[in-house]
Amino acid sequence: MKNESLIYGIRTVIEAIAAGESVNKVFIQKGLRGDLIRELETLLKKHGIGYSHVPVEKLNRLSRKNHQGVIAAISPVTFHNFETLVNEVTSQKEFPLFLLLDRVSDVRNFGAIIRTAECTGVDGIIILSSGSAPVTADTVKTSAGAVFNIPIAKVTHMKDAVYYLQASGVEVVAATEKSPKTLYDLDLKKPLAFVMGSEDKGISPALLKITDHLAKIPMAGDIASLNVSVACGVFLYEAVRQRRS
Amino acid sequence: MKNESLIYGIRTVIEAIAAGESVNKVFIQKGLRGDLIRELETLLKKHGIGYSHVPVEKLNRLSRKNHQGVIAAISPVTFHNFETLVNEVTSQKEFPLFLLLDRVSDVRNFGAIIRTAECTGVDGIIILSSGSAPVTADTVKTSAGAVFNIPIAKVTHMKDAVYYLQASGVEVVAATEKSPKTLYDLDLKKPLAFVMGSEDKGISPALLKITDHLAKIPMAGDIASLNVSVACGVFLYEAVRQRRS
Repeated sequence: MKNESLIYGIRTVIEAIAAGESVNKVFIQKGLRGDLIRELETLLKKHGIGYSHVPVEKLNRLSRKNHQGVIAAISPVTFHNFETLVNEVTSQKEFPLFLLLDRVSDVRNFGAIIRTAECTGVDGIIILSSGSAPVTADTVKTSAGAVFNIPIAKVTHMKDAVYYLQASGVEVVAATEKSPKTLYDLDLKKPLAFVMGSEDKGISPALLKITDHLAKIPMAGDIASLNVSVACGVFLYEAVRQRRS
Repeated sequence: MKNESLIYGIRTVIEAIAAGESVNKVFIQKGLRGDLIRELETLLKKHGIGYSHVPVEKLNRLSRKNHQGVIAAISPVTFHNFETLVNEVTSQKEFPLFLLLDRVSDVRNFGAIIRTAECTGVDGIIILSSGSAPVTADTVKTSAGAVFNIPIAKVTHMKDAVYYLQASGVEVVAATEKSPKTLYDLDLKKPLAFVMGSEDKGISPALLKITDHLAKIPMAGDIASLNVSVACGVFLYEAVRQRRS
């Protein structure tokens, strides 16, 4: 929670969520009941925002202000609407480049990926509303500030995002070792989205099925597994290289 | 120091260093004097091993054993002799690939770089005896174990390493933004060594002067700076790509 912005009070948090503010996580005092709390919990579930019930002492440690039993950590960046972003980019650019992160959960990896995406001219990063590394002050730091320069959009389901991109003329390439083809076998000079999977499980099988291409990074040695931010850099820079020529 | 192997006692530490054991750092009790301590300090300076004088309480926290005022943290891997490694590799391979790290100091970056090097068939990693991230249990973890599969050699001066590689027929490429050429402009299908610089200062100017080629990674956006482990991955995989065709 270090350096993350906090907001306090049931009504404040409800209104922030309703207003589209990017809430990373909500802490609710254990045993707190009532109509407003029910309204808040319904809203949190609807928006896929993580929350937990904690002892009042934890809330008091987070803030000495009059929190009324509810504290929310809000994101330092404003997220873009996914459909609007895709529509804008695809109508303006010949070869859009999107990056979909399927459950990348480590904040340092997430920051390094944002930084690389900014350096490779990525038009937008798509993350999941829940199950992804949150955008916190640490993300800002490890991204070297790039998080403020690149549009990020949250979606509830990655599959819907893939279908929407495909319907918008964007080909979706999944980075996975479960492919005979390498990224060097693909033509990347076209409207494109790369999907990178989580550190431990990779891309979910359901998602792999609906992408247009699977591509692996060639591997020597025995480990045969790269850090996800390094793998992402290799994919993005191969697109940069092909598009330069 | 978490999970790092420790050795104890003045004579033990002196003998370990003399025997070529890889010592990361030595803690010496404040105020401790005598011939053996002088002998130890001379040896530490000669081998470029970091050491510090600490209160006895710190030593007691590190170990309850009879440490006699001296504790050393030793590396979980054995380092290779630089010249022997270069001679072996260059005599056996048509296109050797070496990686020189000029003061990369972050353990997680170092681990990710070792992991990428193993995945790209790098023949050896060269680091500085002092001023580099040490090989600790954290390095082992972030390298996903790759640290045990790839030869690592320590040198006192990077310049000497560059001269030795050049004399052995290896061309040295410095990764630096201070270059009009990009890595895509270079022919990487030859005996090669890449030099990557530190996170904050890059490659030292003296080293840049003596390398055979300077090459930058093309940058879009405003940040114009990649995480060093990502940049290293982009360089190594461009070599992989060129050597495949």
